[in-house]
Amino acid sequence: MPSGKRGRFPVGTPVLDAARSLGVYVESVCGGRATCGRCQVEVQEGHFAKHKIVSSNDHISARGAKEERYDRVRGLPEGRRLSCSATIQGDLVIDVPQDTVVNAQVVRKSAIDRIIERNPAVQLCYVEVDEPDMHKPLGDLDRLKVMLDRDWGFDNLLVSQYLIPQVQGILRKGSWAVTAAIHRDLEASRPNIIALWPGLHNEAYGIACDIGSTTIAMHLVSLLSGRIVASSGMQNPQIRFGEDLMSRVSYVMMNPDGRAQLTKAVRDAVTELTRKVCAEGGVDPNNVLDAVIVGNPIMHHLFLGIDPTELGQAPFALAVSGSVHTWASDLGLGINTGARIYMLPCIAGHVGADAAGATLSEGPHRQDRMMLLVDVGTNAEIVLGNRNRIVAASSPTGPAFEGAEISAGQRAAPGAIERVRIDPATLEPRFKIIGSDLWSDEPGFDADAETLGITGICGSAIIEVVAEMFLSGIISEDGVIDGALAARSPRIRQTGRTHSYLLHQGKQEISVTQNDVRAIQLAKSALYAGVKLLMEKLGVDHVDTISLAGAFGSFIDPKYAMVLGLIPDCDLSEVKAVGNAAGTGALMALLNRDYRREIEKTVHRIEKIETALEPRFQQHFVNAMALPNKVDAFPHLAAAVTLPARATTVDGATGDSTPRRRSREERDARRNRN
Amino acid sequence: MPSGKRGRFPVGTPVLDAARSLGVYVESVCGGRATCGRCQVEVQEGHFAKHKIVSSNDHISARGAKEERYDRVRGLPEGRRLSCSATIQGDLVIDVPQDTVVNAQVVRKSAIDRIIERNPAVQLCYVEVDEPDMHKPLGDLDRLKVMLDRDWGFDNLLVSQYLIPQVQGILRKGSWAVTAAIHRDLEASRPNIIALWPGLHNEAYGIACDIGSTTIAMHLVSLLSGRIVASSGMQNPQIRFGEDLMSRVSYVMMNPDGRAQLTKAVRDAVTELTRKVCAEGGVDPNNVLDAVIVGNPIMHHLFLGIDPTELGQAPFALAVSGSVHTWASDLGLGINTGARIYMLPCIAGHVGADAAGATLSEGPHRQDRMMLLVDVGTNAEIVLGNRNRIVAASSPTGPAFEGAEISAGQRAAPGAIERVRIDPATLEPRFKIIGSDLWSDEPGFDADAETLGITGICGSAIIEVVAEMFLSGIISEDGVIDGALAARSPRIRQTGRTHSYLLHQGKQEISVTQNDVRAIQLAKSALYAGVKLLMEKLGVDHVDTISLAGAFGSFIDPKYAMVLGLIPDCDLSEVKAVGNAAGTGALMALLNRDYRREIEKTVHRIEKIETALEPRFQQHFVNAMALPNKVDAFPHLAAAVTLPARATTVDGATGDSTPRRRSREERDARRNRN
Repeated sequence: MPSGKRGRFPVGTPVLDAARSLGVYVESVCGGRATCGRCQVEVQEGHFAKHKIVSSNDHISARGAKEERYDRVRGLPEGRRLSCSATIQGDLVIDVPQDTVVNAQVVRKSAIDRIIERNPAVQLCYVEVDEPDMHKPLGDLDRLKVMLDRDWGFDNLLVSQYLIPQVQGILRKGSWAVTAAIHRDLEASRPNIIALWPGLHNEAYGIACDIGSTTIAMHLVSLLSGRIVASSGMQNPQIRFGEDLMSRVSYVMMNPDGRAQLTKAVRDAVTELTRKVCAEGGVDPNNVLDAVIVGNPIMHHLFLGIDPTELGQAPFALAVSGSVHTWASDLGLGINTGARIYMLPCIAGHVGADAAGATLSEGPHRQDRMMLLVDVGTNAEIVLGNRNRIVAASSPTGPAFEGAEISAGQRAAPGAIERVRIDPATLEPRFKIIGSDLWSDEPGFDADAETLGITGICGSAIIEVVAEMFLSGIISEDGVIDGALAARSPRIRQTGRTHSYLLHQGKQEISVTQNDVRAIQLAKSALYAGVKLLMEKLGVDHVDTISLAGAFGSFIDPKYAMVLGLIPDCDLSEVKAVGNAAGTGALMALLNRDYRREIEKTVHRIEKIETALEPRFQQHFVNAMALPNKVDAFPHLAAAVTLPARATTVDGATGDSTPRRRSREERDARRNRN
Repeated sequence: MPSGKRGRFPVGTPVLDAARSLGVYVESVCGGRATCGRCQVEVQEGHFAKHKIVSSNDHISARGAKEERYDRVRGLPEGRRLSCSATIQGDLVIDVPQDTVVNAQVVRKSAIDRIIERNPAVQLCYVEVDEPDMHKPLGDLDRLKVMLDRDWGFDNLLVSQYLIPQVQGILRKGSWAVTAAIHRDLEASRPNIIALWPGLHNEAYGIACDIGSTTIAMHLVSLLSGRIVASSGMQNPQIRFGEDLMSRVSYVMMNPDGRAQLTKAVRDAVTELTRKVCAEGGVDPNNVLDAVIVGNPIMHHLFLGIDPTELGQAPFALAVSGSVHTWASDLGLGINTGARIYMLPCIAGHVGADAAGATLSEGPHRQDRMMLLVDVGTNAEIVLGNRNRIVAASSPTGPAFEGAEISAGQRAAPGAIERVRIDPATLEPRFKIIGSDLWSDEPGFDADAETLGITGICGSAIIEVVAEMFLSGIISEDGVIDGALAARSPRIRQTGRTHSYLLHQGKQEISVTQNDVRAIQLAKSALYAGVKLLMEKLGVDHVDTISLAGAFGSFIDPKYAMVLGLIPDCDLSEVKAVGNAAGTGALMALLNRDYRREIEKTVHRIEKIETALEPRFQQHFVNAMALPNKVDAFPHLAAAVTLPARATTVDGATGDSTPRRRSREERDARRNRN
């Protein structure tokens, strides 16, 4: 347990051997010497009707001298056994705990809520090497290889160049006992000795990193237990070269050493963040042996030192789309010299390794149901499909969802409005601000607001306020603020030829203008039109489940996203915020190299749609300008929310009330900013 | 021809395809586009009774447009055809020339006299890559890989990290046509793109380098034609840290940064020598893509940056004995960033990659006859065997053969005596000096000597003078200068309790002293005792053929070496000086990776004898002090040379006339100096 695998073994078989022969990965560094403590298991006692057996501690061998010694020296928790030493004496249900703690690691709340079955690319192997013998003049390294073959089955090992001058010293320091870190990711290639320590070395870590244009997020995880030791994030320092991606590409194009500066900035930041998570986790950076990196195509290229200029213009050619295997030392990340780096494949010029990571995490390719996976940033990355077929695209949503282009918009920070409700009868709003748990009409809110300020509207609230304005009739299906309502509420105010809605009057006046509504309409139309294209490509008229990834996806209320028509109609209980799914995918690829092969194969068969080249995009875009949509039905949403009566349309013609069409040039320009 | 392979092919088969399907390696960079000119062949005209066919230019297709174009643009020599374009139309005898010259390479006399069948680790592959396509967003590198798979059959290619940021620029510069250098040495590993050029790139070179303690020798060779473009040598600058190996090891032990200094010195020298051969050959160092290095264990270790201290003391543990694959850029050799380095395996702590190279060159393992291969330096490396079994050892000969420890000894340089004859009747000598073709009793010699000086005795002459002294009766079988002869010749002179022989009286007096004779006896005894141990190990009482490698081996006269008993008795016509066989072996491994596998397998099965640990060594050493030997017969030598009558021995007892026995400590000290 928990894998549920079962088998029959001769009495006396070590539990570790039994687990391995069933394909259950149980760690062991010391090779069965009962010194590393990594192979702990527990016997479940009782009658297991399902398995038709009675499992008992009487059916496992008593503690031997080696286990007793380990318990004395290192301490073995109550009920735990070392599976390398304990042997099967009868029927047993064996639990392989997922939280084996050795060396009193700092234990934190896990940043993700799933258990990832481990099969990491790096394995620690303790061996005792023959001393040199004049009669058999095999070199130190060669005798080490002999033992790694004999004890661990690694034949024909390569060795990292930097280790060659160190092997003899390490062997002697360890009195001919050493622990080697073996990296064996590439199935078609030889496994490689990437690090070597004297004696038993019982620590191996990896980092999983998502390089976003704004934020770099990282997990530090034990490769031996799968435990997340620390998770942290920091701002991407490339921001000083430009807020959005295209301004960074421009910087590269305009400055002879721009590419080098941006590459250095991001590598330095990843190095710094690595130092930070290592410090938080109490981990020596030299024990970090593997890294998995994801990022959008421009971050991916800049991290690798590739000029991203080609990604800023059609045909948006990636320099490399497949997965990349490289060496940490080449990139200067400050971890073990032999550490490897694996970068997930990119899907297309605007759908990067981050989308691949999110795909790996959410797994549309592992299910029959039709899944829509959306990572909303300034460019939305969209993946749609199931185990039969998957399509992907990006859509130029622009920065409106992040509060830019919105008159009172701001980043999510204390004092920003994050939730909004509007009473359809009175048109009076109530809202919540970040930093307070109270609604604005609740007692005590004013005191909180005094402290925090009420400073603007963050992304999630922009969705909600526009959706609530629609639900309360302040704006029409076409997004026009109804000036006639000025008679009912002083919050509806005329400004020039259009109207606005006053959300809050304090030190700062916070209003939603007609232009704000238009910006949200444009952004959500771009996203929805992309989704529609993919749905058309697959010939489906609905999706079964929706995963909203990224920071924005984590904070918006799915209901309001659907009221706006940002996402297609779907059972609301099937719309999930999945957080940093890209980072989770990186973590999966770090802990289990089978996931690397899985995402490589999956990306290979994902069909890429370039929205700019699809003639239907324009029509989908125009239809999607309406709330929630000019033509598409939202039956699930209608069952959950009272939608305003739909205006009659004349054959889908858009008429005068339709927001101005964006020309392709305008949209291209927008795309390139992102 | 010249491989002699034959087969039947359908009419219309390109000659290149036919050759390949027969396993005949014919180069082609352009992939059959008739632009690189590397695949030239010639039709042999006539009736070939052996093959029972008539071969004629009428049986090959006429020149097509592509061949005509190549001839116009680049020039195709008379009679030559491009085998990628010419097709089989009837019976043909095809000659694959070994001297195809493209790009008007500088042509020099080959430094070695054999043709090495080529199968280099590096292959150049020209491909035309699809342009980027938004509908199929495969990256530049990935589309390149697709073509390298489709056109050249390389699937699953790795790519050198340094190229990743360069791929997109190179593809665009070449208008989507590029030439990739593929390295594919490790059979169990993926082939790797190590270099990339825009357009057709038609040059690829390699270096084969023998790092000796005194001299570094290098060949620069075209990997595409096998032609040696330049060969050169230089002094090993490590000499400033110590003349002999042990003094360099001492320097490492005594100085904290000694190892780094010695490593830098040897790498800098190899870099400098590479620059020199490239300049001589008119080759851009960026076109050097592969390197094979050999050297004795201490040079091997220092070049790799490994502390050689362990090699200076028992058990003489090599840090690495197997072959080493590494990257030129890690060692800073100034050749292409992606270039690889292959180092041949070491045989034992005192029998290095140089001995492995010599073994590969001379090939005892490829023949039935019993071959003795000796590389005489300050440490003699000895390999003995045939295809059934091979043994190897080193013997601490000391520097006597190089002129050190000899009163009038000097390095080979103008003015040094290099040949000596002594008239047995008069005991008068005649000799030759380096720089003059005349014997000292010939007219004109005095004028030459006036110019050159007569400065000392070099290694080859030391062998000759002691052998001639023995043949003329001046010294006894036991090496004692017969003082009684002073009555017959004033050249026999008493000095204290011993005598000496005056070879030349000029500005400098050049004599051979009793101590000089003793030094030569000790050196040759060490060598011979090592040989005898190996012969005993194999249970043979004679050898069929002897190869003398190295500079010393190239200059000594086999007859005199045998008179001295330096080498065992053998048909004199079977004793060959083979020059720098270690360098030739390196060249073979450079031009044909099959030789790498061959020497790896061979070294693996060579049995190593540690002479210091063999109880019989002492007795063989003592027996070998006599000239030519106390117990062993030299029937082949006796047939060619009149040997003095052998003194009666009492059961091999050594008696008073035996030179003092060296204690083991003394020999160990000597070994450590080397």
